[in-house]
Amino acid sequence: MDLKSILEKLERGEIRADEAQRLISSASIANLSHTRIDLDRRARTGAGEVIFGAGKTPGQICEISKKLLECGEDVLATRLSDDAISEVLREFPQAKVSEIARLAVIRSGEKAKALSESKIAVVSAGTSDMRVAEEARLTAEFFGSSTRTFYDCGVAGLHRLTSVIDEIRECRVVVAVAGMEGALASVVAGLVKVPVIAVPTSVGYGASFGGLAALLAMMNSCANGVSVVNIDNGFGAGYNAHIINTL
Amino acid sequence: MDLKSILEKLERGEIRADEAQRLISSASIANLSHTRIDLDRRARTGAGEVIFGAGKTPGQICEISKKLLECGEDVLATRLSDDAISEVLREFPQAKVSEIARLAVIRSGEKAKALSESKIAVVSAGTSDMRVAEEARLTAEFFGSSTRTFYDCGVAGLHRLTSVIDEIRECRVVVAVAGMEGALASVVAGLVKVPVIAVPTSVGYGASFGGLAALLAMMNSCANGVSVVNIDNGFGAGYNAHIINTL
Amino acid sequence: MDLKSILEKLERGEIRADEAQRLISSASIANLSHTRIDLDRRARTGAGEVIFGAGKTPGQICEISKKLLECGEDVLATRLSDDAISEVLREFPQAKVSEIARLAVIRSGEKAKALSESKIAVVSAGTSDMRVAEEARLTAEFFGSSTRTFYDCGVAGLHRLTSVIDEIRECRVVVAVAGMEGALASVVAGLVKVPVIAVPTSVGYGASFGGLAALLAMMNSCANGVSVVNIDNGFGAGYNAHIINTL
Amino acid sequence: MDLKSILEKLERGEIRADEAQRLISSASIANLSHTRIDLDRRARTGAGEVIFGAGKTPGQICEISKKLLECGEDVLATRLSDDAISEVLREFPQAKVSEIARLAVIRSGEKAKALSESKIAVVSAGTSDMRVAEEARLTAEFFGSSTRTFYDCGVAGLHRLTSVIDEIRECRVVVAVAGMEGALASVVAGLVKVPVIAVPTSVGYGASFGGLAALLAMMNSCANGVSVVNIDNGFGAGYNAHIINTL
Amino acid sequence: MDLKSILEKLERGEIRADEAQRLISSASIANLSHTRIDLDRRARTGAGEVIFGAGKTPGQICEISKKLLECGEDVLATRLSDDAISEVLREFPQAKVSEIARLAVIRSGEKAKALSESKIAVVSAGTSDMRVAEEARLTAEFFGSSTRTFYDCGVAGLHRLTSVIDEIRECRVVVAVAGMEGALASVVAGLVKVPVIAVPTSVGYGASFGGLAALLAMMNSCANGVSVVNIDNGFGAGYNAHIINTL
Amino acid sequence: MDLKSILEKLERGEIRADEAQRLISSASIANLSHTRIDLDRRARTGAGEVIFGAGKTPGQICEISKKLLECGEDVLATRLSDDAISEVLREFPQAKVSEIARLAVIRSGEKAKALSESKIAVVSAGTSDMRVAEEARLTAEFFGSSTRTFYDCGVAGLHRLTSVIDEIRECRVVVAVAGMEGALASVVAGLVKVPVIAVPTSVGYGASFGGLAALLAMMNSCANGVSVVNIDNGFGAGYNAHIINTL
Amino acid sequence: MDLKSILEKLERGEIRADEAQRLISSASIANLSHTRIDLDRRARTGAGEVIFGAGKTPGQICEISKKLLECGEDVLATRLSDDAISEVLREFPQAKVSEIARLAVIRSGEKAKALSESKIAVVSAGTSDMRVAEEARLTAEFFGSSTRTFYDCGVAGLHRLTSVIDEIRECRVVVAVAGMEGALASVVAGLVKVPVIAVPTSVGYGASFGGLAALLAMMNSCANGVSVVNIDNGFGAGYNAHIINTL
Amino acid sequence: MDLKSILEKLERGEIRADEAQRLISSASIANLSHTRIDLDRRARTGAGEVIFGAGKTPGQICEISKKLLECGEDVLATRLSDDAISEVLREFPQAKVSEIARLAVIRSGEKAKALSESKIAVVSAGTSDMRVAEEARLTAEFFGSSTRTFYDCGVAGLHRLTSVIDEIRECRVVVAVAGMEGALASVVAGLVKVPVIAVPTSVGYGASFGGLAALLAMMNSCANGVSVVNIDNGFGAGYNAHIINTL
Repeated sequence: MDLKSILEKLERGEIRADEAQRLISSASIANLSHTRIDLDRRARTGAGEVIFGAGKTPGQICEISKKLLECGEDVLATRLSDDAISEVLREFPQAKVSEIARLAVIRSGEKAKALSESKIAVVSAGTSDMRVAEEARLTAEFFGSSTRTFYDCGVAGLHRLTSVIDEIRECRVVVAVAGMEGALASVVAGLVKVPVIAVPTSVGYGASFGGLAALLAMMNSCANGVSVVNIDNGFGAGYNAHIINTL
Repeated sequence: MDLKSILEKLERGEIRADEAQRLISSASIANLSHTRIDLDRRARTGAGEVIFGAGKTPGQICEISKKLLECGEDVLATRLSDDAISEVLREFPQAKVSEIARLAVIRSGEKAKALSESKIAVVSAGTSDMRVAEEARLTAEFFGSSTRTFYDCGVAGLHRLTSVIDEIRECRVVVAVAGMEGALASVVAGLVKVPVIAVPTSVGYGASFGGLAALLAMMNSCANGVSVVNIDNGFGAGYNAHIINTL
Repeated sequence: MDLKSILEKLERGEIRADEAQRLISSASIANLSHTRIDLDRRARTGAGEVIFGAGKTPGQICEISKKLLECGEDVLATRLSDDAISEVLREFPQAKVSEIARLAVIRSGEKAKALSESKIAVVSAGTSDMRVAEEARLTAEFFGSSTRTFYDCGVAGLHRLTSVIDEIRECRVVVAVAGMEGALASVVAGLVKVPVIAVPTSVGYGASFGGLAALLAMMNSCANGVSVVNIDNGFGAGYNAHIINTL
Repeated sequence: MDLKSILEKLERGEIRADEAQRLISSASIANLSHTRIDLDRRARTGAGEVIFGAGKTPGQICEISKKLLECGEDVLATRLSDDAISEVLREFPQAKVSEIARLAVIRSGEKAKALSESKIAVVSAGTSDMRVAEEARLTAEFFGSSTRTFYDCGVAGLHRLTSVIDEIRECRVVVAVAGMEGALASVVAGLVKVPVIAVPTSVGYGASFGGLAALLAMMNSCANGVSVVNIDNGFGAGYNAHIINTL
Repeated sequence: MDLKSILEKLERGEIRADEAQRLISSASIANLSHTRIDLDRRARTGAGEVIFGAGKTPGQICEISKKLLECGEDVLATRLSDDAISEVLREFPQAKVSEIARLAVIRSGEKAKALSESKIAVVSAGTSDMRVAEEARLTAEFFGSSTRTFYDCGVAGLHRLTSVIDEIRECRVVVAVAGMEGALASVVAGLVKVPVIAVPTSVGYGASFGGLAALLAMMNSCANGVSVVNIDNGFGAGYNAHIINTL
Repeated sequence: MDLKSILEKLERGEIRADEAQRLISSASIANLSHTRIDLDRRARTGAGEVIFGAGKTPGQICEISKKLLECGEDVLATRLSDDAISEVLREFPQAKVSEIARLAVIRSGEKAKALSESKIAVVSAGTSDMRVAEEARLTAEFFGSSTRTFYDCGVAGLHRLTSVIDEIRECRVVVAVAGMEGALASVVAGLVKVPVIAVPTSVGYGASFGGLAALLAMMNSCANGVSVVNIDNGFGAGYNAHIINTL
Repeated sequence: MDLKSILEKLERGEIRADEAQRLISSASIANLSHTRIDLDRRARTGAGEVIFGAGKTPGQICEISKKLLECGEDVLATRLSDDAISEVLREFPQAKVSEIARLAVIRSGEKAKALSESKIAVVSAGTSDMRVAEEARLTAEFFGSSTRTFYDCGVAGLHRLTSVIDEIRECRVVVAVAGMEGALASVVAGLVKVPVIAVPTSVGYGASFGGLAALLAMMNSCANGVSVVNIDNGFGAGYNAHIINTL
Repeated sequence: MDLKSILEKLERGEIRADEAQRLISSASIANLSHTRIDLDRRARTGAGEVIFGAGKTPGQICEISKKLLECGEDVLATRLSDDAISEVLREFPQAKVSEIARLAVIRSGEKAKALSESKIAVVSAGTSDMRVAEEARLTAEFFGSSTRTFYDCGVAGLHRLTSVIDEIRECRVVVAVAGMEGALASVVAGLVKVPVIAVPTSVGYGASFGGLAALLAMMNSCANGVSVVNIDNGFGAGYNAHIINTL
């Protein structure tokens, strides 16, 4: 039953208010046996559902994509395996895929939205952090934010950062991506006025413990204005940066 | 020596009571060199031995299955590798296998038992948690409980949960399966009167540390009525739910 | 505004259904600036709010108690400091306090409810686990369950457990309280048909790491039918046992 | 040497540019032997230095405060011991102190700044999280943001949250403060369009491990739009919320 | 230079005592560039060097074996990869290999030594712990101890243990091998008079954390007489048991 | 009912064998409400119950002591608080107390047993490990073993160890007590033929994490013949050493 | 723009000093989209950039190498995959590769520099630690230090170490490489006057937790003069040793 | 027996060389029952024994000090409690005590040694790290190194560091002391040519976990030339810096 029918029934007194509410809840879910797509999410949070690809079969990912497109939602699918990328490209030839960021974008309409004027700076510490930084950049752009990238600006050579700091300062939010000791987040935050979303990565020798070292370091930043997302979670950083950028 | 012989010997005074007891203990074990099957378990705990497949060879799994079937026990074998599944199907064509839950059921008799009238609700947070949820569901059904499933009801879209909460409330126990931050367990427990068995899963980004994040979260639930089983342990949850359901 | 007024307004068309719902939500909360008491909890989960005393001032605890009593709810306050116990006894001379379990019970009416016929077995491993076991026992009794206690039955002397196992088997749920290696939970669960709620305690030498050793052990129980609550969380175990006992 | 003298010297060619730069750097530091106050911080990051009281003697705290006031900066000193609070009040009778949040504010001028029109919502899970929530609130207000508080809205009673969600939605940023399993952050983030700054607290039973459980849970939030600050770091949350609020 | 020459030189006053000592030290080492075999170890500790195969190439393993055999030492090589086993069998056709325990024994003489009269009991909790238990058994036998095995005696079915406890009591040392919660060590130690060497294994669901759960449990045993070796370290347990057995 | 009565009843056919067994089990327990003393322990494990003082009140400790003495058992009570020591000395003036090891010994008869001829070497790394080493020494002597102590022999000055190694080699077991990096255990084990019981202590700078560093180090000893007991568990080491010494 | 042009512009007053500085910063970076090579590093720290191969594609590694060679820098690339080694050898036939240490050296000029007179001692505990020890040795030699190696000198056979200690004492720095319990670092440091750089390796049984045991042990060394680098970080140790050696 | 007597006996053939060696070893130890002072340490490692005060009684500390002074060694005692400081001052009025660094220096002769010409830079991140930085400084000076201090130079205000970097560059070693995220070590190491000894401190909010965050960060430094000592181990850093400084 769609939303309109429910409301008419309510008006005609055929159902009561609480019954109506339950129906409305159900109406805003697209139920695919394995997945209940939250069709109300855009209204509630400002952005539709995104497909977290890890642990889902290529078939499930395509099914969910199809349903989202039917509902007029653009599709962003992250953490795609090689198989999932192939399947997505076969099913949706119009999909745009990033090999390095392991994600796919499938627009439901002809063209992407115009991007915001204000910009997000995506700053990364090392070349090896690039896959996470790209996930952040592409996520932010998917939702409609402009970005600028400043890659390989780790603190071992501070001038790599200071030589671009004025450009970073023109942005409205900073995403700081770093593995190893994650010091980039603190140093950047000490130099800018805007919020810094820090993303620890799993890059490093043994005692990085899969990114734990960088995560703890960023959590403990001595500079103000840093908040942290999960290890390697470029998506989360891009999303957070976007909603701040477009506040 | 079987139980009857032992008791007769005891009656005839050929053995003393303590000797008899030792013999009875031994008689309730089927010794397969690598494995001592506990044939007394059903009498003691209400349910026979189950085969935990991890770390056992396909050959060992089939041997144990065969012995259990000979003793009139139904077989539930979990955590099966692809090889083990093939071998089980070759040896026991009547076996019912779940690819997603990685388990096999082999009935010793013609038909499965009737299922309980009261139901277990198996609620999961995301599509990627499905393999664990299915292990819980199939385990509970193996032992004789009816179940209802509510998959992909994570708290990021609360109405996915609230739209089915009345149906969940009709069940006698809830199994709540969630990875990432595992908040589902707390939210469900705040809405129902029955026990909630929480199962953390290993689904998530880096700082889920293989399910540790969800495990700790569920342990620390601010809602009452939650108890927790091991990470990805759908079997344990299904078993616990079953014994509560049929109390 | 109380519930009745809200419903009348709704009937008279002075407010709409969604407004009514919001008002009803608010009406079921007693707002004490620092605390929002959930007056709907009994209807929803079968049991009223309980006061977790840790981190609250004696004054806050008494204020909340007073409000709960006014609403006709019995009071259970746990984790009380010496100061909080004194203050509670001064304010509510009828309160019953357990020094060892650090909790207080204040009945809103003349007498406690009748206790259930079926029983909960509270089994503990060592004398030093007693404060947690008593928290479990008194919690279960507060909510209306009968209990039996079997203290100091740790597995270092198995006959201390086996000599009472038949009495434990007559109970409908078992709470197993143990620090150190927490083996009690596995051993008991291998001997009974009913659910075992395991409570790790922080008792032990250095490498118990505040109860982590027992927690992990209980999580990994090789016996079926064990689920686990937080370290030293006698309250949670008592509550879980009670709702299972009275299903 | 003050900034003006340096620039004059440079103009007169008495010093070279690099020398000038070094002098300017030094000029923007107030050196108190134990502490180098960063007088340039407001220009660079939008906010002056704050005194982190932990590990400093009352004497050091007062000395730093005095110097900051001399430089025309307002003082915010956090994590104050009882001794430090007494000393601050003795030295600066005009200081405003929060006993619960353990902080002091000393204005350098007559009156506080006008507060922002847009608001920050400070939402907390339980009464025991109040000290951290208050640190966040007072920090945000110190820097010039308006706030609204919603305390004790933990997910064990969802209607405590949903009954105020519309008011929360009117705010521009949310600070979500929770101990135990920290689920509040995920649930709120699933219901709002604005950024959620999550603050884990050290409130909880043993396996919260001093706030680690909540920290990991918040890191792993299944809802989008959550970023996390350090355990019990109300200051960091308030600061982050403020800079987002006034972007 | 061999030992004899050194001593003669010393006698003839051609070298001084300290020089002699340095030469003796060197003489007791067989230096293979990658490896310095400790030829003095048997004299010092009662047993020759053993080859820990992990991280060594098949070539290195064979080279060390050859040198040991030349010096009249029997060879025990543990943790062998498939490649290493093949290479060892090609080079030393007389080698005895255990596929399950991943080790090889190569005797330097015709026949193995006579085994001790007193026995070591190797007790394991589950079938999946067998590879570690076998490593322990074969190690103990390599050094000259008799053994008896009691596999799959986990505490979920206590009678599997109690039915053999009298036979275990006849042994002089017990090796207790268990994964999951590792309770076997405590229960056995509560029933015997002899030392129990506990070996945690990496068998278990997620929260066993690779054997950490069992390790901590065994460390915290409430029964006296338990000491612990590394996770999956069957070799260490077998060695310890042997030296105790032959004291 | 005492053992004799039970056996007579059984002889007269007044009770059956299983009933008799249950009664015998109960008869071997002295039940003090808070504590069930295991009177069968000496028969089963070779040594009577010991009182672990942590978490017990002085009153409980004295009550248990009294009962043990009544049953003819000597008393060893460890981990005593100052209060407990005072109370014990008041109640049992004959008690022998070690302030540094925090334990008390109360003999039930006139004189202590003769000590074993073979000796236990108690070797410690630093002066600060002395309280644990003394707990080990006094425990071993309580049970009847002779000991020799070699304190402050840490590996930073190897000759402190090598100058006494010949005396250590005359002992039948070694207890090696060390905090910090715990290297003492490996070095000693590489020099002797007998078993080494390693005790990690909580002595050290921050990253010893309460003894975890030493515990892991000892677990990973590259020398053979080391097994490990809990952090600061001098008692456990002394007990283990004793049973090995008197095998 | 190169440095000369910038300085000329500054002289001619075409740019101001701060602009000049920004340009100079940029001029010292070779920007390859994915990587910003820090061309100023040698001037600042005494050594040029090194390529950390993990997480970089073979193509990126070759591109960076090429650019470094163009700028007259020698190339050291570590942590190379098999693919990366092949690609490097194809592109730079003059490269010198170590299969065991997984690194490549490509000289920009005809010949390597002369090596220092003073030496670095690289001491390792076991054969399995060799790949890390070789990374340290080759790194130190790349930068211009002479080295001596002492492999397989673990403390289980102290004379393997003491027989070479005089040669070690002739060196100016010691690199101590060890897995398992990492005791080598403490023992060496107690015998020499020079700094010891300790490198924990990931060699060991389960409870080495990927090198954590050795790392903590080395951190907690009871001997003075030890500092520690990351697990398996032979490069870091070699670099540190080199700068100390050539101070 | 003193060294001279031993050598004479050896000359006269009254003892053999190995006996002599054992006696020499013993002679280089001052045995105080609780402590074996290593009198050979200066000869072997270049520096005499230091007293680690934690876990020692004031009496033991004074006894050891007295013995060291008798042997002509200067005394450095660290980690002193208030009681120990009082006792030391009472016994040795000439002692120099640092309240903040918790250490005492007692010279055996009239005056301290001349300090080295080359200098150690002690750089700290925040005021709260001062007690550790002072321990490092005073330790280095005790052994004879000159120092310069640069306190409160954390990376949140980089110019606090860059304004003094030229002075730091004049030093021969850097000690970098930082809590929280410990980024100071990486940033300094990227700017200097000399070795950086990093000291993590336990300063920080909850998720610093007692200094673990800073320790891991420093271990994972992306800048070359950093090695790390234990948390809060100012002594170790000062010692390491000194031996490098005076190489």
